[in-house]
Amino acid sequence: MASKLAVYKQDQLLRANGPIQNDAPMRLRMEAYVKDLQNRIVEGIEKVEGNKKFERTSWKRPDHGGEGMTCVIQDGQVMEKAGVAVSVVYSELSKEAAHQMRHDRGKSLPDRDHLPFFVTGISQVMHPKNPNAPTVHLNYRYFEVFDPDTGMPLLWWFGGGADLTPIYLFEEDCIHFHSIYKQACDLIDPDFYGQFKKNCDTYFCNTHRGETRGIGGVFFDDLDTKSPEDLFTLIRALGDRFLPSYVPILEKRHAMPYTEAMVEWQQIRRGRYVEFNLIWDRGTKFGLQTPCARVESILMTLPLTARWEYMYQVKPNSKEEELESVLKHPRDWIPLH
Amino acid sequence: MASKLAVYKQDQLLRANGPIQNDAPMRLRMEAYVKDLQNRIVEGIEKVEGNKKFERTSWKRPDHGGEGMTCVIQDGQVMEKAGVAVSVVYSELSKEAAHQMRHDRGKSLPDRDHLPFFVTGISQVMHPKNPNAPTVHLNYRYFEVFDPDTGMPLLWWFGGGADLTPIYLFEEDCIHFHSIYKQACDLIDPDFYGQFKKNCDTYFCNTHRGETRGIGGVFFDDLDTKSPEDLFTLIRALGDRFLPSYVPILEKRHAMPYTEAMVEWQQIRRGRYVEFNLIWDRGTKFGLQTPCARVESILMTLPLTARWEYMYQVKPNSKEEELESVLKHPRDWIPLH
Repeated sequence: MASKLAVYKQDQLLRANGPIQNDAPMRLRMEAYVKDLQNRIVEGIEKVEGNKKFERTSWKRPDHGGEGMTCVIQDGQVMEKAGVAVSVVYSELSKEAAHQMRHDRGKSLPDRDHLPFFVTGISQVMHPKNPNAPTVHLNYRYFEVFDPDTGMPLLWWFGGGADLTPIYLFEEDCIHFHSIYKQACDLIDPDFYGQFKKNCDTYFCNTHRGETRGIGGVFFDDLDTKSPEDLFTLIRALGDRFLPSYVPILEKRHAMPYTEAMVEWQQIRRGRYVEFNLIWDRGTKFGLQTPCARVESILMTLPLTARWEYMYQVKPNSKEEELESVLKHPRDWIPLH
Repeated sequence: MASKLAVYKQDQLLRANGPIQNDAPMRLRMEAYVKDLQNRIVEGIEKVEGNKKFERTSWKRPDHGGEGMTCVIQDGQVMEKAGVAVSVVYSELSKEAAHQMRHDRGKSLPDRDHLPFFVTGISQVMHPKNPNAPTVHLNYRYFEVFDPDTGMPLLWWFGGGADLTPIYLFEEDCIHFHSIYKQACDLIDPDFYGQFKKNCDTYFCNTHRGETRGIGGVFFDDLDTKSPEDLFTLIRALGDRFLPSYVPILEKRHAMPYTEAMVEWQQIRRGRYVEFNLIWDRGTKFGLQTPCARVESILMTLPLTARWEYMYQVKPNSKEEELESVLKHPRDWIPLH
């Protein structure tokens, strides 16, 4: 399918010609960036992890229109489960999938049964072992949709963000995480952080429970309101800040003492994480509907273990209730402007 | 909302007049049946469980249009987690919910923004501790949709079924389970078992994994192709057979010896159960979209614990592979006719 696309052939030639230059199409520059970022994140986390290395698996889709690399650590000393995945896909979107994908429900897409598209992105979830250390997620992606007749790009957009899901609340960690990402947003637009922070609380919400998944971060979908160049600068500013946003927190928390009761609460919170990803996450839905999707890469975001207790309730005035209250009433951790 | 419905007031009067008679509206006869069945199932399983009793919780919806009872055992000797829930709801369906609910996507429903409806049903999942003992699910429900202007019933249908999800395969258990339900189906129509068995394999399928949830059973949706009286006979024939379909299997398996490795496989299978219920199950989706739904009752079907290992693979020629192969290639356990 991809091999029929003129852009696919053209891109293969450019890739074969050595490192991607700044005048190459944005899709190739983004692809090169997320691959490099994946490497840096994997190496940065391996330094904290100690002896265990990420298991790196490259894959190709049978129709040659997609490839990627998934890096996973499982049962490490620091990480219970952590995965960093990069993918590059040339394929066709069904009408339903196009509607699933675009936040505005595909209104600005041409009304055709199938639309050729390109997407590249990095997606990552880390669940540390120690209940004092928060789970973290990031995802940055770039889409192009092509005219089915001419093969010319019709639409492009960036999407993504990063967010933190603590099991126990450390306010200083929340402030640190949000401050780092605000710095990146402010490079491009002083309104971005406030908008993206709000988006994040709205999107990463277990609506059926009336609580957010975590303490937020930044999130944006279908972003095309600045030049591609400016938005690529934003993406890189955010992506480059992942290690400084998270590693200092991980280093402070991963060796703190903890009890069996804290692990039980962690398992309950892991269950809520599974609920969000399987019930509400548009990326997961989109992935599982893509023909020949690599299920292992899509579901690598799930924790190693999770627990569902009937009528689970936190004790009043406990550390567990402190977290729950923040999830029910999202806070501004730093001034929005 | 419900209190505005004439049928609701009329039904409340009938309920106050003592036991429901055979000439009462079907919705009240079905309600009485599922409440009685819940009692019998709870008592039947308590006999196997030993000393631990189900925790019984009655609930009412704040707008007085819904009530129910949820019975749960958690961390028992035999049951890791088992829940039997009954509910009776008078409410209004949004257009989306009506489409979600009807298997034929609501085609035969009038095109109105809100449709008053009634539903009563029993829903039950049991996850035993011992990996040799299978998980079992059943659900029987009766719907009526009313004309929003006249309040008269417009449409009615029954739905439901029962299915078995073993962790390890015992062919004799599969044959026993299917034979019992075939007997019930054959009372009404010799074609029903074959149709319902096929429905069950098609519906309880983790499409993204290319495997069914379990070894099947019977399942039907939107059934209104016989008289209400005949279908109510079918529902009772099926419901009454739950204890004979499952208790003999449970008694054979719950005290068999097992290893830690078998528990790990059980945890992986629990993860697949969670995937089906949260990604694919229409009942769960419908429930979580219903305003003021009781989330605890909807999600009581989830196992106590589950596990997701990246790139998990069963060993060739193992007992685990034997099960997986049956899930990838559903079998006819008994002749369909």
